[in-house]
Amino acid sequence: MPDLDVEAELAVAAQLADAARPIALLHFRSGLSVDAKPAAEFDPVTEADRAIEARMRALLAHLRPDDGVLGEEQAKTPSRSGRTWVVDPIDGTRAFIAGLPTWCVLIALYGPDGPLLSIIDQPFTGERFTGVSGAGAWFERANGRERLRTRDTVLRVEDAIVSTTDPGLFAGAEADAFARISQSAKVRRYGLDAYAYAALALGGVDLVIESGLKPWDVGALIPVVSGAGGVITNWRGGPAHEGGQLIAAANPALHAQALDRLASAAL
Amino acid sequence: MPDLDVEAELAVAAQLADAARPIALLHFRSGLSVDAKPAAEFDPVTEADRAIEARMRALLAHLRPDDGVLGEEQAKTPSRSGRTWVVDPIDGTRAFIAGLPTWCVLIALYGPDGPLLSIIDQPFTGERFTGVSGAGAWFERANGRERLRTRDTVLRVEDAIVSTTDPGLFAGAEADAFARISQSAKVRRYGLDAYAYAALALGGVDLVIESGLKPWDVGALIPVVSGAGGVITNWRGGPAHEGGQLIAAANPALHAQALDRLASAAL
Repeated sequence: MPDLDVEAELAVAAQLADAARPIALLHFRSGLSVDAKPAAEFDPVTEADRAIEARMRALLAHLRPDDGVLGEEQAKTPSRSGRTWVVDPIDGTRAFIAGLPTWCVLIALYGPDGPLLSIIDQPFTGERFTGVSGAGAWFERANGRERLRTRDTVLRVEDAIVSTTDPGLFAGAEADAFARISQSAKVRRYGLDAYAYAALALGGVDLVIESGLKPWDVGALIPVVSGAGGVITNWRGGPAHEGGQLIAAANPALHAQALDRLASAAL
Repeated sequence: MPDLDVEAELAVAAQLADAARPIALLHFRSGLSVDAKPAAEFDPVTEADRAIEARMRALLAHLRPDDGVLGEEQAKTPSRSGRTWVVDPIDGTRAFIAGLPTWCVLIALYGPDGPLLSIIDQPFTGERFTGVSGAGAWFERANGRERLRTRDTVLRVEDAIVSTTDPGLFAGAEADAFARISQSAKVRRYGLDAYAYAALALGGVDLVIESGLKPWDVGALIPVVSGAGGVITNWRGGPAHEGGQLIAAANPALHAQALDRLASAAL
């Protein structure tokens, strides 16, 4: 695999995110008003998913013909370069269909050992979170660009803002372990999907705990969280990029404390 | 009480919302990055609450000296006109402190029989939801203004997107009644505070069920929901503006079905 030109690959990721925005916004909240409602049933989030993935694949076929592409809508394009783009055009489909501004477009570039860089993009708010694993993460909006930094002053679960997408997704020992943490936390927030990890990178949320994630769900989260100074692993403290049980913490002290309380349910 | 000049009062409400935006945005996500963090502890949401209420009160003293003003931060200004402005500068303080874009600025004008008109404003996304009780509701953003209409095609709880701010706030019979509805619903969304009612007016969310609301929490919700075609009452089907148990539904059929399932817990 040739050396990674980070700036060049970030520019490709940004091109993919730029291309997704107008397509996502065309479908977001479409069909909600009476005037826009078509006669037949249709599913705006599926339409957006398909159209964005098709556009991203067309761009990558042109810009990075040797790279692999993994998405949910079409068959995997194998990699000849050792690198693969993993895309989730609409993460947070339930937020999308409810008209809420917390769904995201996810783009990650993987090398053989996991994700190298990524973008978490929110087209409606115009927020873009870009990360390079172990190197840095940045927030962009119309009014500028700034370095992302997780919060380093909340070191205990008792002082933390904790998030998970749906507490009802945990069962058995996992549910008990999550309850031990969430019930002692300062604040709980639900239903955010990838936006929770973006908020962690911003320094708003301190801890995100999830389970049952697919490998392609997590790729875009890792560079943004780790680049912003957070710690993201599985519940055993191992690499996060295989999916399954995931924990992201704003700092190493909080990560260690939360990991300890999850240990009995770690697979 | 003189006749209500709706356009003139909507203009006052818009002036209050316009004045709140820059103050709210000055404090939102402040203190999250390392550079912006001050040496001493401070509470950005309390700062924003206080500064916005003070600014709104100053504007109202000038524009509507005979109207009452009710807010959380200062003593009530009594009404000499029969009308009272009820303001909640930052509704959704937990979303605000977590850096999430779903807190709102709430402004309502009450007459003797309840709220006449209101604004639910989200300064970060630039979304403004304006309602006139029983008359209409409108959505505004940079790119224009459109009529708000709730969804009229989801008539059963089983097909509905249901929201409540925190399912843990219900206890006993209320918890059972809410669980009967939420477990049979298509999708559940939590943690949205007033933004859930705005999303209902947009046609995204179908049902919002809450309990323990204060009268000043609900004033701004009623004109937006009812103006968009929704039904908002207490759990007995009576007027919503006294607070307590609240249900908002996208249409009368869904309201009737959900009300029936809440009846055993209605106070």
